[in-house]
Amino acid sequence: MSRDLIDILIKIAIDSADPYKAVKEALRLEGKSLIVRKKKFEMKGRIHVLAIGKAACGMAKALFEILPQELIGNVLIVTKYGYTRGCPETNVIEAGHPMPDENSLLAGKRGLELARDVGEDDLLITLISGGGSALFVYPAEGISLEDLIRTNELLLRSGATIGEINTVRKHISRLKGGRLAKAVKGTVISLIVSDVVGDDLSSIASGITAPDPTTYRDAYEVLVRRGIWEKAPESVRRIIERGMRGEIEETPKRLDNVHNFIIAGNSKACEAVVEKARGLGFNSTVMTTTLEGEAKEVALAVGSIIEEVAKRNRPLKKPAVFVFGGEWTVTVGEAKGLGGPNQEFALSVVRKIAGLNATVAAFDTDGTDGPTDAAGGIVNGETLKRLEKAGIDVEEALKNHDSYHALEKTGALLKTGPTGTNVNSMVIAVVGYKDASESAGTRQPPGPR
Amino acid sequence: MSRDLIDILIKIAIDSADPYKAVKEALRLEGKSLIVRKKKFEMKGRIHVLAIGKAACGMAKALFEILPQELIGNVLIVTKYGYTRGCPETNVIEAGHPMPDENSLLAGKRGLELARDVGEDDLLITLISGGGSALFVYPAEGISLEDLIRTNELLLRSGATIGEINTVRKHISRLKGGRLAKAVKGTVISLIVSDVVGDDLSSIASGITAPDPTTYRDAYEVLVRRGIWEKAPESVRRIIERGMRGEIEETPKRLDNVHNFIIAGNSKACEAVVEKARGLGFNSTVMTTTLEGEAKEVALAVGSIIEEVAKRNRPLKKPAVFVFGGEWTVTVGEAKGLGGPNQEFALSVVRKIAGLNATVAAFDTDGTDGPTDAAGGIVNGETLKRLEKAGIDVEEALKNHDSYHALEKTGALLKTGPTGTNVNSMVIAVVGYKDASESAGTRQPPGPR
Repeated sequence: MSRDLIDILIKIAIDSADPYKAVKEALRLEGKSLIVRKKKFEMKGRIHVLAIGKAACGMAKALFEILPQELIGNVLIVTKYGYTRGCPETNVIEAGHPMPDENSLLAGKRGLELARDVGEDDLLITLISGGGSALFVYPAEGISLEDLIRTNELLLRSGATIGEINTVRKHISRLKGGRLAKAVKGTVISLIVSDVVGDDLSSIASGITAPDPTTYRDAYEVLVRRGIWEKAPESVRRIIERGMRGEIEETPKRLDNVHNFIIAGNSKACEAVVEKARGLGFNSTVMTTTLEGEAKEVALAVGSIIEEVAKRNRPLKKPAVFVFGGEWTVTVGEAKGLGGPNQEFALSVVRKIAGLNATVAAFDTDGTDGPTDAAGGIVNGETLKRLEKAGIDVEEALKNHDSYHALEKTGALLKTGPTGTNVNSMVIAVVGYKDASESAGTRQPPGPR
Repeated sequence: MSRDLIDILIKIAIDSADPYKAVKEALRLEGKSLIVRKKKFEMKGRIHVLAIGKAACGMAKALFEILPQELIGNVLIVTKYGYTRGCPETNVIEAGHPMPDENSLLAGKRGLELARDVGEDDLLITLISGGGSALFVYPAEGISLEDLIRTNELLLRSGATIGEINTVRKHISRLKGGRLAKAVKGTVISLIVSDVVGDDLSSIASGITAPDPTTYRDAYEVLVRRGIWEKAPESVRRIIERGMRGEIEETPKRLDNVHNFIIAGNSKACEAVVEKARGLGFNSTVMTTTLEGEAKEVALAVGSIIEEVAKRNRPLKKPAVFVFGGEWTVTVGEAKGLGGPNQEFALSVVRKIAGLNATVAAFDTDGTDGPTDAAGGIVNGETLKRLEKAGIDVEEALKNHDSYHALEKTGALLKTGPTGTNVNSMVIAVVGYKDASESAGTRQPPGPR
């Protein structure tokens, strides 16, 4: 059946998001030039390296395998405690995540020094991956680490959107909202593994190398609108007020010396799957890279498109593979079951694909879905029947948010182990697959051997 | 802007679902033959007519304008109280809906008599529209109207799916599950306006003219699985037990004398919109005709596809129109707001399309969304800003299920008035539309004049 095929496609997705491989593929030398994608950078001076995030070591390793050793200048690697395996450098700071700590602050200070020391003819290569917002902090003058943490907590509890939270973060920092890059006299090349849905540059690691369209006034309005202006630390309010009066420079609105490249992310992972599927003879498309919402409801919407393809050959003709990227959620409430958003998605979608020739994988690309050892689930047109035979009521299991045990009993859990990357979640759907043994067609994808 | 365009597309959708027009388009005379779609039926004997449903009068009117008066034999029209305006016949029974009543029973008996009187050379044309399940009943021997109503209530409260409910209904009836058609010696032509998501023939009006794949045992298992076998009326249990023992004939598994045609329905309405949009130069497709789930979550999924088209030109290239059909729901809980599933969909989707060149209409094709005078909502990339200016917090309005007032304040309600048909709900999304005044292109769709 199509289980083998979908396993191949999952592997493609995760491989394409591998930070080490992504750096290797994005970058190459050509004489005295560094080529990033199709863009050429002359190496006149030295090359400094600042790697920040959970994948910092892997990314730096790849970079050092490419760069001429003699050109490498200052280097700083900032990563999460315990994430230093195979690190190619000794100048490493391990710091707090998801909560910043004193080491995050140390990393921020050292990082800013490194940036300031970059000469006009030098290059600074920043390697950015998930976790950067917490691992690398340096609050504005007078704001303590405690004030920063408290402001973050207030924002998170207020119901502010991630965009609103970042607007504030960028205006109480000496690094974020493009300020780090602004401090650099030379050229900045930023290679980014995006863990942000939609790949908004100014959100990834709070945009240390991206121009910031928002203002102090915007930050003020977020805090007022969310009802937490009065509760915010005095130091934070003072900085924002001074910013609004023009006493502190705004975040940069453009950065001509900076070149940002998203070298891996959800969108690229989705595209890699589609490319592979097309190569195998499937009709294939990315449906979206910004899927969000309550997992079990969103699964019904995705399932309804699968049903349309299976029964009416549209919007794609069979055999078809389509891919959804994004990040969906589970509102647990009082329920005591075990599961995660992707397992819940998989369990919910079985209701729509029952009896159809369709296989659906939903998984977190980091290999860990919710507090479980599974990455997600793989289900097909037979799964509902199998669940019923195993005595599992799908509606009941969904209500209890106990997707793990339901999928486990029917062999429908997907386990990859930790993948070393994180580009959010994906759904891959294979519809109308016939293996070679069932068909004499020549354009059929290969079946399992 | 694209408001004019989307108004045109909404009108196309509703027109294509008009029961009167649908009969007119499906049927024509050719000498001594009746042509339905491309299928030819010889008119050797008389033509009897049984019209059942909320649109029965309109459908019968169209039929009588086509058929030669002298061939028309027995006629029975069964519709809901107050739905008889413009009825072309005097032999009309008005009956109860959504709860069947004594008149529904009378209608069922008369309908079965009419079916039995159809001669071998005769045609019976059945005209079926929404409401048929309640308007037209005739329970199996020994089952009273009260027993039938009580069984229905038990099923509805048990959490049984509509498929499960119909499995039971079809096995305690003398009409449903194809039994009415089975009683006909001549040929049956059934013209159906489908109000069932997915257009499953055996679900529409409980399938009086469709073969039934389910069995007495299935009906028994539904009642046991849903925990209501013991609570079901004794008369119902007796019929099902006798059926399982083979003492009563099963519902027909095939009906060679019956020809079912779905002449209007959600799928056809979606296709009509796509055809029109393509004619206007848009890339266009039906994404699904079986969309379901909690309106505000499903809207996020649909919105994420709109975002992908707007930002990344996939799965369709701009300018694009895509269409979703189905039936979504709102779980109201304690909230006291005013709205409906389509208004809530529209209000929720504004969060995903903010700032994009996109217009989205979500509406119930019957013109009535929830307990309101609106059919749904029309929103675009500017709506979120307008809501904020009007002091409306979208998250708050969604939590209170008060979509009506939020949309009303921003001129985003869609009001059509009652449309005289019902083919469930639809979403039409127009993405990347440029009106003629903005563009010199010749393939651009016409802008507003």
